[in-house]
Amino acid sequence: MKNIAVLGSTGSIGRQTLEIIAAHPDAFKLVAIAGGTNVDLIIEQANRFKPALVSVSTKELAEKVKIHIPEQTKVVYGLEGLIEVSIHEDVHTLVTAVVGSIGLRPTLAAIEQGKQIALANKETLVTAGQIVMETVDKHGAAILPVDSEHSAIFQCLQGENSKQVEKIILTASGGSFRHKSREELVNVTVEDALKHPNWSMGRKVTIDSATMMNKGLEVIEAHWLFSMPYEKIEVLLHDESIIHSMVVFQDSAVMAQLGTPDMKVPIQYALTYPDRFPLHTPRLDLAQIGRLHFREADFNRYPCLRLAFEAGKTGGTMPTVLNAANEIAVTQFLRSEIGFLEIEKVIERTMEQHDPIPNPTLEEIEEIDRWARERAKTLGRRC
Amino acid sequence: MKNIAVLGSTGSIGRQTLEIIAAHPDAFKLVAIAGGTNVDLIIEQANRFKPALVSVSTKELAEKVKIHIPEQTKVVYGLEGLIEVSIHEDVHTLVTAVVGSIGLRPTLAAIEQGKQIALANKETLVTAGQIVMETVDKHGAAILPVDSEHSAIFQCLQGENSKQVEKIILTASGGSFRHKSREELVNVTVEDALKHPNWSMGRKVTIDSATMMNKGLEVIEAHWLFSMPYEKIEVLLHDESIIHSMVVFQDSAVMAQLGTPDMKVPIQYALTYPDRFPLHTPRLDLAQIGRLHFREADFNRYPCLRLAFEAGKTGGTMPTVLNAANEIAVTQFLRSEIGFLEIEKVIERTMEQHDPIPNPTLEEIEEIDRWARERAKTLGRRC
Repeated sequence: MKNIAVLGSTGSIGRQTLEIIAAHPDAFKLVAIAGGTNVDLIIEQANRFKPALVSVSTKELAEKVKIHIPEQTKVVYGLEGLIEVSIHEDVHTLVTAVVGSIGLRPTLAAIEQGKQIALANKETLVTAGQIVMETVDKHGAAILPVDSEHSAIFQCLQGENSKQVEKIILTASGGSFRHKSREELVNVTVEDALKHPNWSMGRKVTIDSATMMNKGLEVIEAHWLFSMPYEKIEVLLHDESIIHSMVVFQDSAVMAQLGTPDMKVPIQYALTYPDRFPLHTPRLDLAQIGRLHFREADFNRYPCLRLAFEAGKTGGTMPTVLNAANEIAVTQFLRSEIGFLEIEKVIERTMEQHDPIPNPTLEEIEEIDRWARERAKTLGRRC
Repeated sequence: MKNIAVLGSTGSIGRQTLEIIAAHPDAFKLVAIAGGTNVDLIIEQANRFKPALVSVSTKELAEKVKIHIPEQTKVVYGLEGLIEVSIHEDVHTLVTAVVGSIGLRPTLAAIEQGKQIALANKETLVTAGQIVMETVDKHGAAILPVDSEHSAIFQCLQGENSKQVEKIILTASGGSFRHKSREELVNVTVEDALKHPNWSMGRKVTIDSATMMNKGLEVIEAHWLFSMPYEKIEVLLHDESIIHSMVVFQDSAVMAQLGTPDMKVPIQYALTYPDRFPLHTPRLDLAQIGRLHFREADFNRYPCLRLAFEAGKTGGTMPTVLNAANEIAVTQFLRSEIGFLEIEKVIERTMEQHDPIPNPTLEEIEEIDRWARERAKTLGRRC
């Protein structure tokens, strides 16, 4: 029996995690959850799974939730609540499925307790990769990737010697605008941007997918997760999202993980690793699909991908700035305050105005994160 | 330092094995080789690698070879010579790269000595799979596949629990006539049949590839190598031969091994396993290839594939008959004695006339092998 805590239980990844836990009651027990403001769903989840601990975003929401759930379930709130969920003594595996840099402190807290982390929060590694991985090493914790691409790479590395890896190839669908030229992107709408061709995901991630910042963040994440220099990480456009990612070894052999796009596969693998449990989901039928397509990922077409590689190679606090500016710019775009092509401009200008701190402390990272958000907001308003 | 013996050193796989050994003099030493009748090449190999033991097909050839190679190299011949090479006390890994059922006895002898087998000879497992695998288990030997498809599956299974495999998918290019209809196959020539689209291989294997018997034999081989019931083995047509084969797990995840078609990759992997040595061969460039194609493998278009599944499921001596009849029919086709479509007829009729023996002994297998060859010759002459 593996005891699980989920940060972000009401989001897309969180809900699917709970479905997997429910499907294997002999293997998993949900002991703590943290949601945000979707109180109705939190109440439903608390009543269904009866966790020991529930966290919501504010004190007011906590009071509201308390009335509707079993008396023995403790209700907490805020960042402290998130941390309490993460380090709950019964927790074996923490699923970090909150979006944004709010996932950082609770994840670090769980790592310090030696807990296993099923990581679906990109920002944790993007903003503080060095600190996180040093903490992982120090406390003998383990990070299992939940992102389909990193899960694919992780699967390709099983039974292999990572020193014999020549490069890793992250595949990218190219997002909702992949068949549009730069010129056609000027007047695209939020609604258009939210139509991802292959994956059903949250709004932020879907926009990140259209700009390719999603892949850029994954490049930085892969750098930390697999101790891989940026020179050994490549991005390949692959329309169908069937090959989830690949590893090239020094003997030229390429290992790949494939499947129909379904986040339940990498989520479940992170929970069952090194085993694989049965999963009732459509099987890949390559004869029916007929063709798989591949193209080069063009930095001119996707400047956010270039910015991410640049931020990663610069290191220090630059990836923090990339990520913070992106969060703000995407929020502004989702509110129709800026155009689609202004997302990349806001990020690039914020990065230009930042003098990166090498080997930053957590406090410095958080300060730079705040600075970058303010800067990006101002730059966005000027667009 | 790993000491290697090679059966079939003058063939396509054998020559490439020797190139790999030559490229890694600190890791491998060639201690024994067996060639057939290509005396010039045998002499060249013996002078270059200075093995302790060399075997050729006949006494006459052995006398001829002796004159031209170092005095300290012992020269032997015939089936006894093949066996002497296989069980030479210094040998750690035996590469079985002879074509045809002549590989069976020497390979079994090496297995009985607990040697590691790098198996490129399909017929060993096709004709006597049960005996071979029982001997492997009894003597703690190991079989490492050299065929690109089985090597791919073997690589996909690394770090996995084989009980959690749902099925294995062998990919097939479809061979030299894959874009021809059944009607167009009536008058094809030997020359046409020898033009394989992706792989450069020996003549027998190239014809087997055009009839798909090659894939059929691989299905039977996979059944034994991976203890996989025939219901869990599928064949998928894949024009480009880039995905070398796949494994589907019970969580729906598919692992695949890819690469540009180059037999050196699986040969080297069988020698270096579980490590991978650097190999200078063109890297896979999927963006440049652009598209991968997949189609169902149709039993009506490829009756040899159907016959192989039938023989495998029937078991006992039926796969021996399938293989023996195929060897004869292909030889007859290569001599232009029968037409291309008569290959499958000769095999099917020979199988129809055989009453399979369950759990045969090695002697029974050899007797049935002889019977099937005679039968197929007669049936071929009648075509």
